[in-house]
Amino acid sequence: MDVPKASDVLAKDLRERILSGELPEGTVLPAERELVKQTQMSRATVREALRILEVQNLIRVRAGRSGGAFVQRPTTNSMANTVSMMIRGQQIKLADLFQTREALEPFCAELAARNRTEADLAALDQANEALADPAADLTAFLQANLDWHVGVASAGRNELLIGFMTALSRAIYTGTENAAFVDDNVRAVTVRAHRSVTNAIRARDAEAAARRMSRHVHSYAKAALAVDDRDAITIDR
Amino acid sequence: MDVPKASDVLAKDLRERILSGELPEGTVLPAERELVKQTQMSRATVREALRILEVQNLIRVRAGRSGGAFVQRPTTNSMANTVSMMIRGQQIKLADLFQTREALEPFCAELAARNRTEADLAALDQANEALADPAADLTAFLQANLDWHVGVASAGRNELLIGFMTALSRAIYTGTENAAFVDDNVRAVTVRAHRSVTNAIRARDAEAAARRMSRHVHSYAKAALAVDDRDAITIDR
Repeated sequence: MDVPKASDVLAKDLRERILSGELPEGTVLPAERELVKQTQMSRATVREALRILEVQNLIRVRAGRSGGAFVQRPTTNSMANTVSMMIRGQQIKLADLFQTREALEPFCAELAARNRTEADLAALDQANEALADPAADLTAFLQANLDWHVGVASAGRNELLIGFMTALSRAIYTGTENAAFVDDNVRAVTVRAHRSVTNAIRARDAEAAARRMSRHVHSYAKAALAVDDRDAITIDR
Repeated sequence: MDVPKASDVLAKDLRERILSGELPEGTVLPAERELVKQTQMSRATVREALRILEVQNLIRVRAGRSGGAFVQRPTTNSMANTVSMMIRGQQIKLADLFQTREALEPFCAELAARNRTEADLAALDQANEALADPAADLTAFLQANLDWHVGVASAGRNELLIGFMTALSRAIYTGTENAAFVDDNVRAVTVRAHRSVTNAIRARDAEAAARRMSRHVHSYAKAALAVDDRDAITIDR
């Protein structure tokens, strides 16, 4: 029989109160000593429960006089970290990542065309400029690429899709880091494709944005996977 | 300046070795005492590092004579948990969840039509039977609904999409638990739609599977969100 640990029970109780909003972002949890008094649990148990919440990014512990355990909501970023962990741990194939992108991104482009603001367009333009910079090395190119794709998702304003796309783009970045396929031709094609999708988003043409994004993601994946047996290669870092 | 904690450093090192596959699934980590000797860290630090990995579901600690800390890979399930946590913690709108489903599921249906096995079809049929059972209460109906949707993703054989769909379906389950909109009519329509998608998957007709799934997900979302102001309602549990 599994007997739950006291620290897990306390961590769960606090977690529920954070997730439900009862303890809002920025709230300071009672001091360790106070929690010991309230819960009748040992100091070690209370400390362990707080450590669990810290590992789950639900509190941030600051030392010093104005310190304490500050509540923070789970962010897109912490979700992206877990997704990346699963992708690496299960050694999910690069082909599967690209395939998932083919599912998500045309839809993101469609939403972006509907919901984009001027600030979104400025961010996309900036990423495109960095992408087109002939002085950009591979790392800079891949970073600008990532920024643009996450930028399209952000312009769509769907928080869950933004989270999925952030995780996915990061994993693809890692998986293509040493990518022999990113030659001058792939770069030029990518720059053109991004501009043409951005134009459709600017023109609020949802249908064209989706169609162009779909074509772009599909051909980028083909180029990436065509490099010998890349579709059999797993991401191992 | 942020000085990393010793337990975080040790946890990170072990985590990397688990994710890279150097420590494969099922491996037993050295005993606490042994880790203390190897790392020159205190017993409390080693214990805390192991606790961190346990919270992250990267090891499972079993007590007793044949016990120890067993390595486990991050699963779809643990990713789904984190995604659910983010959805709840950020109070992502039900409308956003449905929208994400509209992006993912037609694609999943298409893949299922291409890759399904006889066992997949049997699982889908079983979920459909449970769904059509007139004796099924709301909980049973929603569970059968979830099983079918996750079943379609599973039949598609893309591990990342399966993970996303599992997380998403669970969150939608929670968000519609008290759903007034699931009346006899919605049930009958759902049963028919699932059968028709399943038929297309059985016939390996990827195009029809995607089209029918798209129509189904869209109209289910409309029914769910039409109940007064549901699209403004956030999931708070």
